[in-house]
Amino acid sequence: MEKRRIYMDYSATTPVKKEVVETMMPYLTDYFGNASSFHSFGREAKEALDKSRSQVASLINANPNEIYFTAGGTESDNWAIEGVAFAHKNKGNHIITSKIEHHGVLHPCEYLEKHHGFEVTYLDVDSEGRVDLEQLKKSIKDTTILITIMFANNEIGTIQPIKEIAEIAKEHKIIFHTDAVQAAGNINIDVKDLGVDLMSMSSHKIYGPKGIGALYIKRGTKLHTFVHGGAQERKRRAGTENIPAIVGYGKAAEMAKANMDNHIETLTKLRTKLIDGILERIPHTRVNGSLTHRLPGNVNFGFEFIEGEGILLLLDMLGIAASSGSACTSGSLDPSHVLMAIGLPHELAHGSLRLSIGDFTTEEDIDYIIDNLPRVIERLRSMSPLYETYVREQGQLNK
Amino acid sequence: MEKRRIYMDYSATTPVKKEVVETMMPYLTDYFGNASSFHSFGREAKEALDKSRSQVASLINANPNEIYFTAGGTESDNWAIEGVAFAHKNKGNHIITSKIEHHGVLHPCEYLEKHHGFEVTYLDVDSEGRVDLEQLKKSIKDTTILITIMFANNEIGTIQPIKEIAEIAKEHKIIFHTDAVQAAGNINIDVKDLGVDLMSMSSHKIYGPKGIGALYIKRGTKLHTFVHGGAQERKRRAGTENIPAIVGYGKAAEMAKANMDNHIETLTKLRTKLIDGILERIPHTRVNGSLTHRLPGNVNFGFEFIEGEGILLLLDMLGIAASSGSACTSGSLDPSHVLMAIGLPHELAHGSLRLSIGDFTTEEDIDYIIDNLPRVIERLRSMSPLYETYVREQGQLNK
Repeated sequence: MEKRRIYMDYSATTPVKKEVVETMMPYLTDYFGNASSFHSFGREAKEALDKSRSQVASLINANPNEIYFTAGGTESDNWAIEGVAFAHKNKGNHIITSKIEHHGVLHPCEYLEKHHGFEVTYLDVDSEGRVDLEQLKKSIKDTTILITIMFANNEIGTIQPIKEIAEIAKEHKIIFHTDAVQAAGNINIDVKDLGVDLMSMSSHKIYGPKGIGALYIKRGTKLHTFVHGGAQERKRRAGTENIPAIVGYGKAAEMAKANMDNHIETLTKLRTKLIDGILERIPHTRVNGSLTHRLPGNVNFGFEFIEGEGILLLLDMLGIAASSGSACTSGSLDPSHVLMAIGLPHELAHGSLRLSIGDFTTEEDIDYIIDNLPRVIERLRSMSPLYETYVREQGQLNK
Repeated sequence: MEKRRIYMDYSATTPVKKEVVETMMPYLTDYFGNASSFHSFGREAKEALDKSRSQVASLINANPNEIYFTAGGTESDNWAIEGVAFAHKNKGNHIITSKIEHHGVLHPCEYLEKHHGFEVTYLDVDSEGRVDLEQLKKSIKDTTILITIMFANNEIGTIQPIKEIAEIAKEHKIIFHTDAVQAAGNINIDVKDLGVDLMSMSSHKIYGPKGIGALYIKRGTKLHTFVHGGAQERKRRAGTENIPAIVGYGKAAEMAKANMDNHIETLTKLRTKLIDGILERIPHTRVNGSLTHRLPGNVNFGFEFIEGEGILLLLDMLGIAASSGSACTSGSLDPSHVLMAIGLPHELAHGSLRLSIGDFTTEEDIDYIIDNLPRVIERLRSMSPLYETYVREQGQLNK
């Protein structure tokens, strides 16, 4: 019998859907032209580029000429933040972000602080991971040129009050960027209704290929170019257009939009089943993040007395692929900055597990996890000195 | 009869070879994991990443840990230039480059001049497009922190004296970067022998996929990170690793290395045939660039009395895809900065045609061009007031 493999790490990356691969294939071989070339090979590529741009724009209700293709979400974040910072440094040097941003946002902010004379305020979040709008308002200065707050968190799935943040930014004439890498294509987003100025997006989180993303730039938003060179992307992002990936992203965006209601309903149902099943079977467990403002596919458990690494190892042996947090920081021994920011004690932050659900997750997958995870946790707790102490103390209390 | 289509624009981009596509495919669907993930899906991706890094390193005789994957040649150029500039700005603010660089080099240089207080010297080139080593030496100042000179020119194919430039840079303890986007995989390159510190490379110029490239960073070379975020690429280039593209690039690099001698011999033979055939049949024609220090696949003609746009249009109608210069600047009405730098008068720079040969070019393709191009040029000249004037004057002289 082939070993069962259950992928529960859709927030890290998704497989490319069959229809997306099929759409991409001809552009690798037959229609391989450079979209900036004058001849027929170039024109074929250019037509595909235009179509994909419309598909991605449509996903978030943007105009196609507000969509700029990049190599992925992290580049989009870097472009938005450094691009705004350098373009507006004569006006001010202050940036506001939150403590639970992805490193694609935090690290360019730290870089600007360390090497280019900028000042950054890192907002706290509440126990569910939401920013406090009053604290945001109070942190605004005359020198504030950018607010960058993520749409939905990659570890705990918390969705921020984006529309309210956009209104505050607009009131103070500050540019607002949101990292929507986890959100765009997984929940309904209408940039016009929300009023954001800049939004980062990624293809490989929504069943498109890796190596491609986009930055939504609201018409009229001033920022420096990040990658300088040829005249691609209306002279704002240089480099030969990655047509096969762009075509794949367009198709993935189109499919995400068409499937949105079903996607949200199905994933939310599976999420609820998983959360209820585990909370019922495993004591001393909490759900990290919000139960209401949450990405449909995100589950994040905190198990007391044990460490995430051990859980991942045993799950991997059972064929279950999960994560302790962000794939981008795996290998680090520090506890997640997100879990620390929502106030988890060190031990509990270390004992967390992210199970992210996607379009290929089945009820049977969830059942298998509900059946197997309790034994994994039990086994690890049986080896845990912390748990032993706890049980001993409980025993003494009950005497 | 299906219309004949001859692709003569390999310098703009190449089709992805069948073997490369086949190598990539499983990583889009079955082995789609995030290479930074802890579980089996992640490990499969990580193994593929390591293998590809070795393949790309081997192409230029680098160590695998000196290869950093990027989204392409332009990002590599931007990273090298801005990364060195910002990391060494306390030492100096002077950069030396040449007038015939790709815009992926020229534009970041101009950006640093305009917005970040750097000073850039743009070296002249001779009539063949080679930099003058004496002028280079004279332009070095105490504040010079970077020399960036391309390996081989994308328009006229001229190969620079890279080893000599590297020696001069080393003598003065200046970092040397070379844009080898057109060279790496098309000619033999040994970075250890040459002594370069930084080298930009691209996949889609050597039959690999678009959207992936690399920066060679010689061990010990200090430069700032360009894309900040997750811990990928040993914390020097953030963003989820684009495994399918990386795997494709690795395969393309491996194939390029294995096929190098045959590639150079075949393309050089076809190039010579094309040049000889055209020079014999079309009067008032010159070859732009060097006949000795030249990329095997590059041909660049200057036809007097006519304009490049007209040539491209008529060739496109005959099914021949060519270019007037760089695809990255198409749409611009200015004559090529490269052709102006080698001293061509305005009119001749406008009448230039790049025909770039690749691994799928056949003798029959070259014959077809030799048969058809003369009629194209003749037709355009018959409509040209410049040519009319010339013929009239010649007639008067011969009276």
